[in-house]
Amino acid sequence: MISAHVFIATSLDGYIARADGDIGWLLQRDDPTEDHGYRDFIADKDAIVMGRGSFEKVLDFDPWPYDRPVLVLSRQLAPTPVPAALQDKVRFCDATPQQVLAELEAQGVRRVYVDGGQVVQSFIRAGLVEDMVLTTVPVLIGAGRPLFGALPRDLDLQLLASRSFPSGLVQSTYRFAR
Amino acid sequence: MISAHVFIATSLDGYIARADGDIGWLLQRDDPTEDHGYRDFIADKDAIVMGRGSFEKVLDFDPWPYDRPVLVLSRQLAPTPVPAALQDKVRFCDATPQQVLAELEAQGVRRVYVDGGQVVQSFIRAGLVEDMVLTTVPVLIGAGRPLFGALPRDLDLQLLASRSFPSGLVQSTYRFAR
Repeated sequence: MISAHVFIATSLDGYIARADGDIGWLLQRDDPTEDHGYRDFIADKDAIVMGRGSFEKVLDFDPWPYDRPVLVLSRQLAPTPVPAALQDKVRFCDATPQQVLAELEAQGVRRVYVDGGQVVQSFIRAGLVEDMVLTTVPVLIGAGRPLFGALPRDLDLQLLASRSFPSGLVQSTYRFAR
Repeated sequence: MISAHVFIATSLDGYIARADGDIGWLLQRDDPTEDHGYRDFIADKDAIVMGRGSFEKVLDFDPWPYDRPVLVLSRQLAPTPVPAALQDKVRFCDATPQQVLAELEAQGVRRVYVDGGQVVQSFIRAGLVEDMVLTTVPVLIGAGRPLFGALPRDLDLQLLASRSFPSGLVQSTYRFAR
């Protein structure tokens, strides 16, 4: 069975980025001497699913940071060509979370890293996220792109672990109740 | 010097109540065998400031739960009489956070518990909150009254402590940077 997993950071008021996509407030509070567990998290993931916002943010990084296949879920990008340098690394796709997981499962993928606000929201809403590592940055930014969105019903979570870092990050791992 | 302190719980998606004020989702996840520290928190507070929403919620409780003077900040309630049973316990007031703290300080109050979404937001926006104990309940409710609101600028916080409970609550204590 394929499963989807989230590893994401928000401001204390729940934003993953400012309204214009800026994550400078996040990067400038990242203490590179602390191990926040991303390497451990990504180690057993076979593929990455993200939205257009995350993809365009990652495009700013050089070199391309992922050594796993990346699927970009975007109605807007789906009919456009993938940049030449990323042809063997990235695919654009317009599909529902269910369709994406079914397709990846047919390709042998078992564990998917789901990233980006809209995409994470759509996977949560569809009940398709297995667990979530949520890192809270000790700053209030007042407005922006929220991690969470509207839901058809309450969703219970089980806290699996919680830890804090000297920099003030609080990282909690939740499993979604079935 | 007088100081203002927050002790509050939110859903994982940052709501203190549903849009209609309902906090059943919160109460039903409260494990009475766990000590979440409210008694310790309130022990050194001399007065409580809250908004109309919190006041009306507390009115449902019987008996009245507070043994400290309560100031209800509400333009709507300010011109109305306090219910007879609460005459010596509650005062209605329409004032800014600065005015409220100045008035309470003149009365000898040193440490104020600030409660309720709108009132906490207005104290935070005015830079008047000293520290905040934030308890996160492991549920997503999708919509409601958010704890945090718009801000004129980013506000940094210092994490003082963080702990989790078997019930899945994560409680983090922050000090607002000056």
